[in-house]
Amino acid sequence: MLKVHIINGPNLNRLGKREPHVYGSETLDDLEKKVTAHADRLGAEVTFFQHSSEGAIIDTLHAAEEQADAVILNPAAFTHYSYAVRDACASISIPVVEVHLSNVHARESFRSVSVTAPVCRGQISGFGFEGYCMALDFLYREESK
Amino acid sequence: MLKVHIINGPNLNRLGKREPHVYGSETLDDLEKKVTAHADRLGAEVTFFQHSSEGAIIDTLHAAEEQADAVILNPAAFTHYSYAVRDACASISIPVVEVHLSNVHARESFRSVSVTAPVCRGQISGFGFEGYCMALDFLYREESK
Amino acid sequence: MLKVHIINGPNLNRLGKREPHVYGSETLDDLEKKVTAHADRLGAEVTFFQHSSEGAIIDTLHAAEEQADAVILNPAAFTHYSYAVRDACASISIPVVEVHLSNVHARESFRSVSVTAPVCRGQISGFGFEGYCMALDFLYREESK
Amino acid sequence: MLKVHIINGPNLNRLGKREPHVYGSETLDDLEKKVTAHADRLGAEVTFFQHSSEGAIIDTLHAAEEQADAVILNPAAFTHYSYAVRDACASISIPVVEVHLSNVHARESFRSVSVTAPVCRGQISGFGFEGYCMALDFLYREESK
Amino acid sequence: MLKVHIINGPNLNRLGKREPHVYGSETLDDLEKKVTAHADRLGAEVTFFQHSSEGAIIDTLHAAEEQADAVILNPAAFTHYSYAVRDACASISIPVVEVHLSNVHARESFRSVSVTAPVCRGQISGFGFEGYCMALDFLYREESK
Amino acid sequence: MLKVHIINGPNLNRLGKREPHVYGSETLDDLEKKVTAHADRLGAEVTFFQHSSEGAIIDTLHAAEEQADAVILNPAAFTHYSYAVRDACASISIPVVEVHLSNVHARESFRSVSVTAPVCRGQISGFGFEGYCMALDFLYREESK
Amino acid sequence: MLKVHIINGPNLNRLGKREPHVYGSETLDDLEKKVTAHADRLGAEVTFFQHSSEGAIIDTLHAAEEQADAVILNPAAFTHYSYAVRDACASISIPVVEVHLSNVHARESFRSVSVTAPVCRGQISGFGFEGYCMALDFLYREESK
Amino acid sequence: MLKVHIINGPNLNRLGKREPHVYGSETLDDLEKKVTAHADRLGAEVTFFQHSSEGAIIDTLHAAEEQADAVILNPAAFTHYSYAVRDACASISIPVVEVHLSNVHARESFRSVSVTAPVCRGQISGFGFEGYCMALDFLYREESK
Amino acid sequence: MLKVHIINGPNLNRLGKREPHVYGSETLDDLEKKVTAHADRLGAEVTFFQHSSEGAIIDTLHAAEEQADAVILNPAAFTHYSYAVRDACASISIPVVEVHLSNVHARESFRSVSVTAPVCRGQISGFGFEGYCMALDFLYREESK
Amino acid sequence: MLKVHIINGPNLNRLGKREPHVYGSETLDDLEKKVTAHADRLGAEVTFFQHSSEGAIIDTLHAAEEQADAVILNPAAFTHYSYAVRDACASISIPVVEVHLSNVHARESFRSVSVTAPVCRGQISGFGFEGYCMALDFLYREESK
Amino acid sequence: MLKVHIINGPNLNRLGKREPHVYGSETLDDLEKKVTAHADRLGAEVTFFQHSSEGAIIDTLHAAEEQADAVILNPAAFTHYSYAVRDACASISIPVVEVHLSNVHARESFRSVSVTAPVCRGQISGFGFEGYCMALDFLYREESK
Amino acid sequence: MLKVHIINGPNLNRLGKREPHVYGSETLDDLEKKVTAHADRLGAEVTFFQHSSEGAIIDTLHAAEEQADAVILNPAAFTHYSYAVRDACASISIPVVEVHLSNVHARESFRSVSVTAPVCRGQISGFGFEGYCMALDFLYREESK
Repeated sequence: MLKVHIINGPNLNRLGKREPHVYGSETLDDLEKKVTAHADRLGAEVTFFQHSSEGAIIDTLHAAEEQADAVILNPAAFTHYSYAVRDACASISIPVVEVHLSNVHARESFRSVSVTAPVCRGQISGFGFEGYCMALDFLYREESK
Repeated sequence: MLKVHIINGPNLNRLGKREPHVYGSETLDDLEKKVTAHADRLGAEVTFFQHSSEGAIIDTLHAAEEQADAVILNPAAFTHYSYAVRDACASISIPVVEVHLSNVHARESFRSVSVTAPVCRGQISGFGFEGYCMALDFLYREESK
Repeated sequence: MLKVHIINGPNLNRLGKREPHVYGSETLDDLEKKVTAHADRLGAEVTFFQHSSEGAIIDTLHAAEEQADAVILNPAAFTHYSYAVRDACASISIPVVEVHLSNVHARESFRSVSVTAPVCRGQISGFGFEGYCMALDFLYREESK
Repeated sequence: MLKVHIINGPNLNRLGKREPHVYGSETLDDLEKKVTAHADRLGAEVTFFQHSSEGAIIDTLHAAEEQADAVILNPAAFTHYSYAVRDACASISIPVVEVHLSNVHARESFRSVSVTAPVCRGQISGFGFEGYCMALDFLYREESK
Repeated sequence: MLKVHIINGPNLNRLGKREPHVYGSETLDDLEKKVTAHADRLGAEVTFFQHSSEGAIIDTLHAAEEQADAVILNPAAFTHYSYAVRDACASISIPVVEVHLSNVHARESFRSVSVTAPVCRGQISGFGFEGYCMALDFLYREESK
Repeated sequence: MLKVHIINGPNLNRLGKREPHVYGSETLDDLEKKVTAHADRLGAEVTFFQHSSEGAIIDTLHAAEEQADAVILNPAAFTHYSYAVRDACASISIPVVEVHLSNVHARESFRSVSVTAPVCRGQISGFGFEGYCMALDFLYREESK
Repeated sequence: MLKVHIINGPNLNRLGKREPHVYGSETLDDLEKKVTAHADRLGAEVTFFQHSSEGAIIDTLHAAEEQADAVILNPAAFTHYSYAVRDACASISIPVVEVHLSNVHARESFRSVSVTAPVCRGQISGFGFEGYCMALDFLYREESK
Repeated sequence: MLKVHIINGPNLNRLGKREPHVYGSETLDDLEKKVTAHADRLGAEVTFFQHSSEGAIIDTLHAAEEQADAVILNPAAFTHYSYAVRDACASISIPVVEVHLSNVHARESFRSVSVTAPVCRGQISGFGFEGYCMALDFLYREESK
Repeated sequence: MLKVHIINGPNLNRLGKREPHVYGSETLDDLEKKVTAHADRLGAEVTFFQHSSEGAIIDTLHAAEEQADAVILNPAAFTHYSYAVRDACASISIPVVEVHLSNVHARESFRSVSVTAPVCRGQISGFGFEGYCMALDFLYREESK
Repeated sequence: MLKVHIINGPNLNRLGKREPHVYGSETLDDLEKKVTAHADRLGAEVTFFQHSSEGAIIDTLHAAEEQADAVILNPAAFTHYSYAVRDACASISIPVVEVHLSNVHARESFRSVSVTAPVCRGQISGFGFEGYCMALDFLYREESK
Repeated sequence: MLKVHIINGPNLNRLGKREPHVYGSETLDDLEKKVTAHADRLGAEVTFFQHSSEGAIIDTLHAAEEQADAVILNPAAFTHYSYAVRDACASISIPVVEVHLSNVHARESFRSVSVTAPVCRGQISGFGFEGYCMALDFLYREESK
Repeated sequence: MLKVHIINGPNLNRLGKREPHVYGSETLDDLEKKVTAHADRLGAEVTFFQHSSEGAIIDTLHAAEEQADAVILNPAAFTHYSYAVRDACASISIPVVEVHLSNVHARESFRSVSVTAPVCRGQISGFGFEGYCMALDFLYREESK
């Protein structure tokens, strides 16, 4: 059974409260329920993490190598400057898929730079909660090959 | 029934022959077969276009507004400089999803710039043929809401 | 009698439909009618072209040298990157006047760069359909000298 | 009756003497006569100002709001750095049309940057004295709508 | 009664010991005493936090929304790169005032860039401990309106 | 008794009329009344100047050294390019405090650059009229030490 | 027998008419005659193409793989921005030699950037019509090894 | 006896597992053993720390001032952006030597920028585990002077 | 008899008072006396101007064409951004020699850019009051040829 | 008889030993033999120089004006920064052809900048030893005109 | 026995006389004595070179391949621009260790760029004469493996 | 008696032959005669050097400290990139005056950058041979103080 660790970065615990014109009014809890339901349909197992600390995200990525088959990572603001998170992604051998809720290319110019994407498997941005499901679909189909 | 126009940009007719270490050995025909099969499973209708000419892509985007519910667009090299294709995406009201076969962030630096993404719904890069299926999944679920 | 070729670039066939908050709700047909009426008043002859293909715009510019006394060119998105259109303007000896409907300086930063203007006679931007009439007025008075 | 203030910036009092290969041999007085004649034909009233001082241009712009229906401004060298003149244009509610005698895009690279244009109604460059007449034509037709 | 959370960023616990030619010889404790005395005079309540960890600052900002009426934030070095702290400021609805002890514009060039200021209410820099009192004064007068 | 010269730069005489969505509807007269009242409470003496001319601001700064104990300066647009005003601030030995009504970091990118701040005592931005009072408070407390 | 496709890009059909101070007064027809004569001497077969459309150049490059042993390409203005032409060169396995009539390094700064050269075999610039003969010489000698 | 704190930054706990083509197959444990053996030979005492959290590294640097004579710091990815770690180095008075396992100048361009080096005593890069021994040698000889 | 207008720009009236570690303790009056004495020795006539207003400097430059044989100009801070002063220098036909008291290349980086020098005869920087005498010597010898 | 000086720059004496994956295993001696044979076939006379010293290359260029009809120059690393070699090329009136063994556009980004090419007749890069023969062919045909 | 060539670049013969606040008062002779003593202790043989000429440094690097086992190179100012010295380092197969006396990262910004380091084994900067001994230690231990 | 070493950099031996539209038709010999005559009038002793080799210029600068009271240096092309010449100027304690024949600010943009000027006493550019005499005048008057 496919095991996926889903790691949400800084401020994503504020979903639903934070800038609702950008991120909508649904909460992190709503996100987790929706994605769990999708995983159940696929027959995959998902575990959720949310950290606003760079160090905790790095530790969670390291741990994932032993505990999971893949990672879905929304690095949030760390996307744009955390070479430490980048190196953590590069330091594990399971695939990491980068996901963003909003279309990062349509916002402030600093958000179109991703220092983490070059060492991830791929990047999905702009599809809201669906982005996580799309990442799951990809990982599920890859594993089934 | 969801109707989607899938537009592939310049040189994608060379898939399988072009830089196989980057793009693999499957051809555009293989891509179209795989995505059609996926569309059939969803109950969606897909029509394929491939143009190496910027003007033809623009015309196809304009026509899509009347003929389809959404567009999946792989602008290939036009991604990085064609403000004309960008304006064409902005000039139609149906959603356009940008897809790239390879992880553009992991290649030459000019490939990490997308002038089209800011006016698209979202961007998917790095998942090979699966990227088109993921885009279809998204459009299908959106429509079902 | 002054003969002027008026060439509109990519996506201008979408006028009225495209981003009406920027370009208004009048169509390319409305534009052509208004400018023709103005030409009639001056006693000038105008011929209209609209192409979304760079190559077609270049061919039309080349042909204008034989067929017209001057060109009014709205290169649209090509303004910002098409050195090929620039070279086409430089390759003909009749005057080319660059026109933009919107004020390009008040929009996204990439729109304030014109690679074509340095080889045109002058540039008019921000006056909507009137811009074409102003260009006609200029060409008409120049010829009358 | 349309009242327009025409403000010429620094060094334009040197017209005819200054760099005649760029600006021709006609003087500011010639310019004012030509534009007055054009205004007379239209039935508009024009008042001319020329200042080489940034502060005087700003004061003249402020005063125009009470005394005129529109401004035609040739900011000359201030175009390229005077955020103070820019703010003055933005601080009045009547339209300001930016005019340049020469084609600024065809000269030194610093001349292609306009810090004032983004807050003006539009920009006209490269048509010599005619540029002022074209601006008048525009303002006249706008008012007649 | 106005409640303000005052958050000091990385290395500010070293005040008095760290680069005394820049920051003087008074300690964080001295700062807190001085600001508390000022708050007492105003009749406001201040609570102090100091964290060298980005994650802890983010958590403290999130918590402030429930527990305080406003935040005074000295992001120290995070000012210059932490888009995560920026997003945390943007994710809460109470005002955040950014304060710097030294005049950041008069030091190394990287210190004149603030990625957090655009989403704060305002910024105060260069007034030493007084800067915090000025921020308090502002928040107090705002509330009294 | 603390004597402070308060110098407002170009276009600030348009306060209340200029871009009210940015600057509010209160006028320069309202600003001066409010700050005078605050100065009265402190027992300080304030004198107001407003100039849209760079040269006049420089002269006023020079004169302040003899006539006042400190300067509060809102250089407005000069902030972003006037090295002449910068040199004037550096040429006097009394403290100069830079104040901006709006949060300059949250507007157009050119407004986040201050060429004057490096030679001022400190900078306050984003607090509206209150910013001047905060500057007065600081100068008053400094003098009382 | 060595077969070479010689592809000339946009505006090269204007040779002899276009900017004769840069390109001389000989025409494209003269170029083709001269190069054919040289090919005849070598015993090579040359076929000429000229397109002002990017898409047509791409199609001609794709077709060359089947029909020729090598390509001589003068991308003209496309040299400086067409990543689509670049990708077309990279997508075929026969050698492509880039040729420019004028010395691109001695003209406008944008002309010294070639986005196509990195994927070509080499680049020749500044030798007029002779450049094509030099490219032929190279290809002929390579094949003879 | 010379006491040195050796602080390893984010992801260095992955040594031996992480990108072995860059970092080799020896682990952090191997590194610590080798350096301890070298310290023993010199008669110095080394204590090791590894943190993937910026805050923890800052705290460890602060504590070192009381507990050690010098610090050897491998800031790993923090080298390239952590002004907070930089300020922590500057806030203590004992020497800090910056060490990198790989030659940072021979890798991705972002790795050749060090924001921490300007406030360290010196920098050693490219010598693998030996780099730490070389730093120890330096500190030992300095102390012996 | 050689007539030279010597124009000193903004803040030079503060000489002797302004930043004496850069400019020394001698005043503008001392400068004028020294240069007059030198002119007397040469048998030249010098007239001095000092303006902190850009407009006044421009007017003085314009007037010089009629009244003098040459200009010695110390544009002070205007050197670095005043394209208006630059255009004024270019608008007169007598030679303008640019002089700076301090070595502008050895100070803040913005001071090494001169927008006026390209249209002056030459530039002298770093020789204090002597620089003006050297400029006089040059003009004197030129005239004597 | 055409006399050509062929000047090879720094490190080209290491050909065959230096980075053979870039430059192949043939030596400078092989190069000279091959090019001499080609010159013999043409009936031209070639003289070879190799210097790793900038000054020696400059002297050799100066001397060539008297002793030769043309120069073939491979400036090697000097291509990218030696304005002194550039000025030497510009200081002689015989044609200089710039040659590079490897395709400089396909290597490190600094290698695509040539400071010498703008003052040379043309540039040839990427054809190995053949590049020198192609340059000879060009010079030979030019002379024969 | 390990043989090392130690090459010091331009101006290092001025050690002790040159900028003693940066480089101390010890001379090149002192440096050579100290390093020789260290080499003696290790049982290594060192030979010293100092050249202010780029060409001489390149020749010495070339010669080292035959005569030594390794090179310690202080390229001094050449570090920042000499691609010729860089290519010389890349053209030999023995290891080259780059050493700087001062901490190049703590000085003028141009000194933090090294064009030579990417092709060296590693870089040591900021440890004065000790830096050479550290490099020797490294080379010695490497050889002993 | 004032002793001055006058050092001319690369290609200045070509004076009179090199680009006469820039440098005139007088030779280096003419320059030396003219400057010697001027020195004789002052009662100063001048010695001339001309080197196209960077190393020779550095050596000559070093030697000047013992043999002369001052240096007049025209670094020619080295001005724009030779940090080695810069360091040589900084390594001697006698004053160095930088002289350029042409107005470097009015030519190619790379010529307006001087890496040597920041460590020279001052810079003179644009006055032809007179520039050397002006430098002599300055040094003579300085010494006479």
